[in-house]
Amino acid sequence: MAPKLDSYFKTVDSLADSFIDRLRKAVAIPSVSADEERRPDVVKMGHFLKDELTALGAHVEARPLGPQPHKEHLELPPVIVARYGEDPKKRTILVYGHYDVQPALKEDGWATEPFELTIDDKGRMYGRGSTDDKGPVLGWINAIEAHQKAGVDFPVNLLMCFEGMEEYGSEGLDDFINAEAKKFFKDADAVCISDNYWLGTEKPCLTYGLRGCNYYSIEISGPGQDLHSGVFGGTAQEPMTDLVRVMGSLVDTNGKILISGLDDLVAPMTDEEKSLYGDIAFTMDNLYESLGSKTGIYDDKERTLMGRWRYPSLSLHGIEGAFSAPGAKTVIPAKVIGKFSIRTVPNMEIEDVDKLVYAHIDKVFKSLGSKNTLKTINQHSGKWWVASPKHWNFTAAAKAVQEVWGVQPDLTREGGSIPVTLTFEQATGKNVLLLPMGSSTDAAHSINEKLDRRNYIEGIKLLGAYLHYVAEEPMKES
Amino acid sequence: MAPKLDSYFKTVDSLADSFIDRLRKAVAIPSVSADEERRPDVVKMGHFLKDELTALGAHVEARPLGPQPHKEHLELPPVIVARYGEDPKKRTILVYGHYDVQPALKEDGWATEPFELTIDDKGRMYGRGSTDDKGPVLGWINAIEAHQKAGVDFPVNLLMCFEGMEEYGSEGLDDFINAEAKKFFKDADAVCISDNYWLGTEKPCLTYGLRGCNYYSIEISGPGQDLHSGVFGGTAQEPMTDLVRVMGSLVDTNGKILISGLDDLVAPMTDEEKSLYGDIAFTMDNLYESLGSKTGIYDDKERTLMGRWRYPSLSLHGIEGAFSAPGAKTVIPAKVIGKFSIRTVPNMEIEDVDKLVYAHIDKVFKSLGSKNTLKTINQHSGKWWVASPKHWNFTAAAKAVQEVWGVQPDLTREGGSIPVTLTFEQATGKNVLLLPMGSSTDAAHSINEKLDRRNYIEGIKLLGAYLHYVAEEPMKES
Ligand SMILES: [Zn+2]
Ligand SMILES: [Zn+2]
Ligand SMILES: [Zn+2]
Ligand SMILES: [Zn+2]
Repeated sequence: MAPKLDSYFKTVDSLADSFIDRLRKAVAIPSVSADEERRPDVVKMGHFLKDELTALGAHVEARPLGPQPHKEHLELPPVIVARYGEDPKKRTILVYGHYDVQPALKEDGWATEPFELTIDDKGRMYGRGSTDDKGPVLGWINAIEAHQKAGVDFPVNLLMCFEGMEEYGSEGLDDFINAEAKKFFKDADAVCISDNYWLGTEKPCLTYGLRGCNYYSIEISGPGQDLHSGVFGGTAQEPMTDLVRVMGSLVDTNGKILISGLDDLVAPMTDEEKSLYGDIAFTMDNLYESLGSKTGIYDDKERTLMGRWRYPSLSLHGIEGAFSAPGAKTVIPAKVIGKFSIRTVPNMEIEDVDKLVYAHIDKVFKSLGSKNTLKTINQHSGKWWVASPKHWNFTAAAKAVQEVWGVQPDLTREGGSIPVTLTFEQATGKNVLLLPMGSSTDAAHSINEKLDRRNYIEGIKLLGAYLHYVAEEPMKES
Repeated sequence: MAPKLDSYFKTVDSLADSFIDRLRKAVAIPSVSADEERRPDVVKMGHFLKDELTALGAHVEARPLGPQPHKEHLELPPVIVARYGEDPKKRTILVYGHYDVQPALKEDGWATEPFELTIDDKGRMYGRGSTDDKGPVLGWINAIEAHQKAGVDFPVNLLMCFEGMEEYGSEGLDDFINAEAKKFFKDADAVCISDNYWLGTEKPCLTYGLRGCNYYSIEISGPGQDLHSGVFGGTAQEPMTDLVRVMGSLVDTNGKILISGLDDLVAPMTDEEKSLYGDIAFTMDNLYESLGSKTGIYDDKERTLMGRWRYPSLSLHGIEGAFSAPGAKTVIPAKVIGKFSIRTVPNMEIEDVDKLVYAHIDKVFKSLGSKNTLKTINQHSGKWWVASPKHWNFTAAAKAVQEVWGVQPDLTREGGSIPVTLTFEQATGKNVLLLPMGSSTDAAHSINEKLDRRNYIEGIKLLGAYLHYVAEEPMKES
């Protein structure tokens, strides 16, 4: 295999400028899915991908998703699905990415124009969508082109699914994936998603787990309307008083969740899992740098990574209906809604967590002896996901990392959720691999988003190498 | 005295329509002090009063207050000060009112045009400022006119102080009162303010006490910027977690303040004071109606009134810096500022309360073991005020109420503050009486503000009768 990859790698290097130019064109299309007025640009970006893929000989379809829920006058941007290669003797790999981006305005504090790819002398390529997720999406297209130009046979049949609403909740995508699982995607042997980041800046990783999220609101109401504290303070039971006491009963300063029974739902740590944390390229200074402070819970790296990846956490986000502006207002709010969420991990089932949460809140509220009215709601939830990192999809990717970067990748999880991961796993029944291209400093969703030139170009090599290894990896899981 | 009052009362009745017309003209001037663009109307309203008083032969001055703090391009509206009568043999009574009003827009939900006095078939006179405070201010002017038309000698020298910024913090007024205490106001023997309301709708009251207010913010900060709970939940100490626990330690559902030592500052209840509450015209249904719910703390009227008037209360107003919008956001706020205030009563000194509050919060925060940073601030404070209801200023007013309304007034306090009350007391060293004209249903500051025709016309009689009784009441305090 090495000779084929050598030739592919050299071709990628020789095409580097044109690949960067392709990224420049993509970044120049402000495909902001959250902004109604940018919808034509989102559609334009989808068609840009369609044209690039068509030019490379892929079979491409722009699939409509219908009107946008709650904004029926807006048509959702199409899902671009494509197939490159139809050889029944080859494995088929399904890849996913998104071509929409987060909003970005120069005024937000960008040092450069957000929709003009700007490369500095350290090879940092600044631009909205550079790393999230246009770089990785173009990575697959560039890999096809480099194989053609190198005259190297493409090792797999590649199925592609590129959506245009990821940054706005992937509206309509779940239904689409479920509907196409046994149609357009039916041949998929494994799935690969490149839409996350390395844990640090130097060492690549493969990601095999994500936490889920149960998001709750606690509504406590009493008076018919907001009251003046001068007139009613000391005579009325105040919803805010009850709410902070209920919220204060959920979690302590060190992140310990105080909801009884919740810990019992968490899969116990095995020695084998424990042994994985020591080698991960991560330091407490990495944490402090990203926190911007030293207010971490744990002093050691292993427990910190476990806290992020494999244990649940509970965060209090805020209160709706109370006074939240600067200054002073002597209001007694009549109805307040506390918001919090629990990041879930194996084996916490959404409904089991709900039950414990409701029981805890009911019990605490009852103990207050309040005449106010309590209503707890699960606003939304998404399940955790954990794949086997010993699956051939992962071992192939590890070999590709070793080949391109000369190092064994860290096996990581993430604390946040990428809901489409679970959707693909459940719809196709196949193993899903998260194979990041960018690094921890890329500032996706922030000002000055960037992708390092090195991560882009080596990343294109990595995606191609992965397809070679995954084409030949023995199909066993352990 | 009765014959003089009879003649005065009859004249008030005969002039009722013209007094209502005067109120109509005043309401038609939208003197909204909070609205920059309405500033000329506020000034116009001041000059309206000046002209009316001048026409009645009073000595009137429009005294400038200089530019508005923080809005230096805006000139503050003048204080209208006036003197009616210069007889050294008569007592001198200083009265205060304000000629500015709260904002009002038809779109806010008014049933009528807010700046057109509209009288319904029950004699309810709707219009912004009708009860707060144009009706009472015109009450004094009407009283002068009715004495003149009745040919009844005016019983006192009347000093008037009408300001135009009351609804926007009485900017500049304290300095003015302090400066004029020994000048324009130097002859004052007692002070009367008509800018509050009856406790109910049927029985007049005299008000002899107000609670003070210490307003605090608790700032807790940790990370350098807001964090994503997926990435950092379970690894960072979260300021919101600390804040709700600190806020939850301040007060319980039944309004009991949990700050140790605070109760010791409260003047003990005497049997004499206790005996005052039973007769007050107030029922639990009054409370439930104004609350719009049955979520009161106490089941009995006496304890409820004490909770409003003579015990401190602590209200949690809200949190700045946390997620406060509808919907769901998985943010970990980096810096949150909890706001609460304590309504204070005799003998709670502002600084003593500060000390106990800071000590309590420090102690609770320390017990959390948090690495986050705490900062507690007294944002502003105003002292409580209690006058002796046995002072001749009050006994005279009680006789006037008996004369006009045929009933002994309730002696009430209020839970909120009217800071100018304390300023007048401290600057002049004289007894201050709060003598309300309107009733509890007048909806000052709300939509559909009104003043009942009866309260206006009988109120004019009351103000005049008060001046007669206060002119002759034996000058003793007990
Ligand atoms: Zn993304
Ligand atoms: Zn994103
Ligand atoms: Zn007022
Ligand atoms: Zn007012």
